[in-house]
Amino acid sequence: MHYFQKEDLEGFSKIYRLNLINSVTGYKSAHLLGTVSHSGIENLAVLSSVVHLGSNPALLGFILRPTTVPRHSHANMKANGIFTLNAISKGQIEDAHHTSAKYSEEISEFDQTQLKPQYKEGWEAPYVHGAPIQMGCRYLNEYSILENDTILIVAQIEHLYIDSPLLGEDGWVQLDQGEIVSINGLDGYALPALLERFEYARPKK
Amino acid sequence: MHYFQKEDLEGFSKIYRLNLINSVTGYKSAHLLGTVSHSGIENLAVLSSVVHLGSNPALLGFILRPTTVPRHSHANMKANGIFTLNAISKGQIEDAHHTSAKYSEEISEFDQTQLKPQYKEGWEAPYVHGAPIQMGCRYLNEYSILENDTILIVAQIEHLYIDSPLLGEDGWVQLDQGEIVSINGLDGYALPALLERFEYARPKK
Repeated sequence: MHYFQKEDLEGFSKIYRLNLINSVTGYKSAHLLGTVSHSGIENLAVLSSVVHLGSNPALLGFILRPTTVPRHSHANMKANGIFTLNAISKGQIEDAHHTSAKYSEEISEFDQTQLKPQYKEGWEAPYVHGAPIQMGCRYLNEYSILENDTILIVAQIEHLYIDSPLLGEDGWVQLDQGEIVSINGLDGYALPALLERFEYARPKK
Repeated sequence: MHYFQKEDLEGFSKIYRLNLINSVTGYKSAHLLGTVSHSGIENLAVLSSVVHLGSNPALLGFILRPTTVPRHSHANMKANGIFTLNAISKGQIEDAHHTSAKYSEEISEFDQTQLKPQYKEGWEAPYVHGAPIQMGCRYLNEYSILENDTILIVAQIEHLYIDSPLLGEDGWVQLDQGEIVSINGLDGYALPALLERFEYARPKK
């Protein structure tokens, strides 16, 4: 096994450290974050930090780094209070990754990729057409993480669309039926396949 | 597509809603959290909310629900300031899932599964023997998420062990080389396979 301690991590080149530390925390969720500005310019940004916070109410969180690309997304969601999260499927990974390029604010990533915006149920933020899971979310709050100047966004799922073959009788959504991907590090995209689903765990007698 | 709005989500049975909302946020990282109490009792808990916070310093976060199983883990990591996170590989999923059973504080999950504790470099929290990635972490801070009484733990990676075949020349760690799994919902375990790794994205000319 390779072994690194804190001082080794600090001594690595920036790129080496970014690759390493972004990978070792394991597989990450893969979403496209859709917002729109007051002047009507759509923005789309790939996001790998969405985390489940709770089911009732249906809350999720994600991390934003104010100095990186999602700053337009952040300004938009704070201005109008809503956004969308769209699961990334196998056929969309190249375009999804391209949304991480640093375009200026007046350029929509929808115009720079094959991804198409979709509007439904009066929700004023764009969904990604063809995404197997689409969530219309309301911004609730944010927490400043003082240790490294990042922000935890807390939001509620208000609209939820799921491709029919994914949804089971008990509410469980089988993600591999939609070829939904997972992110490995900064730039790797992986396709999971279900191994097993377990019963609720109870102590052994 | 199935469509649910906020009121539908609120009206579902508890189990249906837990399955649904835990699944729709996408694939989650899969870790075993290792701690030890002051009286020397080891605790191991499966965790699906680890998220990358930053690379320099190497920070990660995860969500704890004070009312659920990881309360022993939480008490232990606050008491002695350290813990371990261990990537779950394909051969360990049944035992990893079993650590979610509600054992009382004096019972170690290491004794109830085939998982074996491992101590290295003087770190006083147990690693999981055979885990392809092991991280010795220091508890730094926690943030109370007021919207649903959960807690975001912030920690720093101080010791990092990686199975040699996983680590690339540029620091990127290819998770599928260690058969590291990802979690789908509350109880589904999936095995990802790398599709593609992309270049750093730059705006199109």
